[in-house]
Amino acid sequence: MKVAVLGCGSVGSQVVRLLVEQADDLGARIGATVELAGVAVRRIDAPREVDVPEGLLTTDAAGLVARDDVDLVIEVIGGIEPARTLILSALEHGKSVVTANKALLAEDGPTLFEAADKAGNGEGRDLYYEAAVAGAIPILRPLRESLAGDRVTRVLGIVNGTTNFILDRMDTSGAGFNEALEEAQELGYAEADPTADVEGFDAAAKAAILASLAFHTRVTAADVHREGISEVTAADVASARDMDSVVKLLAIAELSGDAVAVRVHPAMIPRSHPLASVREAFNAVFVESEAAGQLMFYGPGAGGAPTASAVLGDLVTVARNRLAGTRGAGESAYADRRVLPMGETVTRYHVAIDVDDRAGVLASVATAFAENGVSIQTVRQEGRGADAQLVVVSHQATDAQLSATVAALRDMDIVREVTSVMRVEGEPE
Amino acid sequence: MKVAVLGCGSVGSQVVRLLVEQADDLGARIGATVELAGVAVRRIDAPREVDVPEGLLTTDAAGLVARDDVDLVIEVIGGIEPARTLILSALEHGKSVVTANKALLAEDGPTLFEAADKAGNGEGRDLYYEAAVAGAIPILRPLRESLAGDRVTRVLGIVNGTTNFILDRMDTSGAGFNEALEEAQELGYAEADPTADVEGFDAAAKAAILASLAFHTRVTAADVHREGISEVTAADVASARDMDSVVKLLAIAELSGDAVAVRVHPAMIPRSHPLASVREAFNAVFVESEAAGQLMFYGPGAGGAPTASAVLGDLVTVARNRLAGTRGAGESAYADRRVLPMGETVTRYHVAIDVDDRAGVLASVATAFAENGVSIQTVRQEGRGADAQLVVVSHQATDAQLSATVAALRDMDIVREVTSVMRVEGEPE
Repeated sequence: MKVAVLGCGSVGSQVVRLLVEQADDLGARIGATVELAGVAVRRIDAPREVDVPEGLLTTDAAGLVARDDVDLVIEVIGGIEPARTLILSALEHGKSVVTANKALLAEDGPTLFEAADKAGNGEGRDLYYEAAVAGAIPILRPLRESLAGDRVTRVLGIVNGTTNFILDRMDTSGAGFNEALEEAQELGYAEADPTADVEGFDAAAKAAILASLAFHTRVTAADVHREGISEVTAADVASARDMDSVVKLLAIAELSGDAVAVRVHPAMIPRSHPLASVREAFNAVFVESEAAGQLMFYGPGAGGAPTASAVLGDLVTVARNRLAGTRGAGESAYADRRVLPMGETVTRYHVAIDVDDRAGVLASVATAFAENGVSIQTVRQEGRGADAQLVVVSHQATDAQLSATVAALRDMDIVREVTSVMRVEGEPE
Repeated sequence: MKVAVLGCGSVGSQVVRLLVEQADDLGARIGATVELAGVAVRRIDAPREVDVPEGLLTTDAAGLVARDDVDLVIEVIGGIEPARTLILSALEHGKSVVTANKALLAEDGPTLFEAADKAGNGEGRDLYYEAAVAGAIPILRPLRESLAGDRVTRVLGIVNGTTNFILDRMDTSGAGFNEALEEAQELGYAEADPTADVEGFDAAAKAAILASLAFHTRVTAADVHREGISEVTAADVASARDMDSVVKLLAIAELSGDAVAVRVHPAMIPRSHPLASVREAFNAVFVESEAAGQLMFYGPGAGGAPTASAVLGDLVTVARNRLAGTRGAGESAYADRRVLPMGETVTRYHVAIDVDDRAGVLASVATAFAENGVSIQTVRQEGRGADAQLVVVSHQATDAQLSATVAALRDMDIVREVTSVMRVEGEPE
């Protein structure tokens, strides 16, 4: 089995290292020797973390994926182009492909899956991508295979390490967002431009992939309602603590009738929930299904070596399939589900409101909820006089009803300010 | 695809229910219709949780597995016989097999795997058993496939729900073992005769299966060092709490050079460890590997529906393999590793000692550790006079060195009693 690796950055260099160091073990597991056919890079003389055996480096990625002696192509370049063109070319040339490219899968997965189905003169070729979601954590394979006889109803994921690190710091130290972000940047958990992480773009791509697999349908990143964590305040985190909860950026995909709701936003979850104990930059995916009940998969969500572990796990499966002349379960997107607009999505709200401290305030606020069809679960008054605050937690309602309620509150004379609005997830209604 | 189900107890009846209710979904995932060929039971007229379609019940299990029209056999009878004979016969007749039988796999796995390799006139047939360890939690597939390109170094599992429930109750309520066991029995988490659970036999079977898969070798239940939780006292649990730790019954399998150490015993783990937050009767398996780092898989470890979910996940894979004329990764037990005797296993001890409160006590105790080659990490004196107690936590040493130290302490005049000895796991040395 000859393997071409596209890209030799932090993931690619670990893939190359493991391919070389563990060649014997990999060969035993596959049932055939594994050999590095070439490593495509942008510049031959760039510094890299691994010594690539001489003569294997090439800048001609397109030529490498088309080579007759290459069986398997590993794409770890990332981004849309040239990754897409190279993967499509590899499939057209009958190669099996392993990729870690979440952005590409979330944007244009259907094109890739279709190409995989048609590859090899219609026989089909494998396109595996365990590493694209939650790094080393095996989550796609359990969703696709282990739970294939069950019915998944909801997936809740902490799928972005940067934001989890920031929110964890805000929870443990009481720091504000900017302070926690700076610490994350100093420690290498956040990039200089942290937008993709803190605004939820990265999590939204993963949410689209998780939703597609869990519900056998096609969801792209554009379908995902997305809110980041840059508006989360120390006061929000303190409010959560008062409720024995913690704020997490969640990627949520759930069945709602025959439709699927997919969203990424910060939310309060109870500390007793298994996701609440996911610390620092770790990731975890919590899956609810009809028969299995609640499952959680936890581990490092990023990093060169962990991601490379997931890539090589796929490589072994894909190589075994190729030797056997077969392919894996594929995408089986047989359920063409509507994506529910965010307004129709059912959730709960935690709302903190600075109010005038006078008789009838609670009744007025309660009326605003009732008039918008939102039932209140708990309400708590804190402080007196100029510090008076109401904290309301709603029962389930549509997001449209909840946001209309918040808009109505903002218009009320007795409401000085709606200081915090956050969704509440992870507990039974 | 025609499926024979052997056994119709709590798991079998859920398997039958899901097979019938989800036939369309299963068919879409497999790429062929799935039909129940028959359900073998001991008595046709016994009460059961599911209505089996008329004419499908039979008491002739041997005849059912030999039937020409049967493709797949699901064994959910449990126990050694007649399960073993039936599985071997099914394989001999060229069927693919899914089983949830941990006892049989742990006692005689090699016989079954060999039969699977020879089945179908030497082509080999699938023998899948995800449900045998940790119920619905997908752990065998990740170990066998997702981590196939990595090198697993240690597996720590909470794989018995009964004992986890008891220890969790002891931790949260301060109850003693007997009281917590009674509560578990009342709530249906423990059987009237709880021996298999509380003495660690069930966990040892699962440890053998996990070790075999994680390290590609053959480990049977007889190879597993086993200690149960019936000797764990409220004082042990309180000592753990003082160390910000919690007592769990752990199934541990780890590489030690080229050998493998496999053991089941109660141990203290820090509350910050992901396994510490596994509550009630839930299970979790924590995996350490070279590239992926730390992974954890969490979920319900037992129950009819969760276990059936795992069985059906296997069924879909096995059916797809059969349609494609291939088989899964199999056992690949290519590494024939020595099982390390418990005495050579490296671990740490927490020892609480009631001592005479006089000068030189600490020095004498420290000498007993040093003379047996055990280095002390921390020592703490508590109480004075008649209540004086030393609490010692060691660095890593062999279990033989540690138990020799405890024996030496018990012989010392100044030691009134060694009140608690427990291993410490789950944190870096």
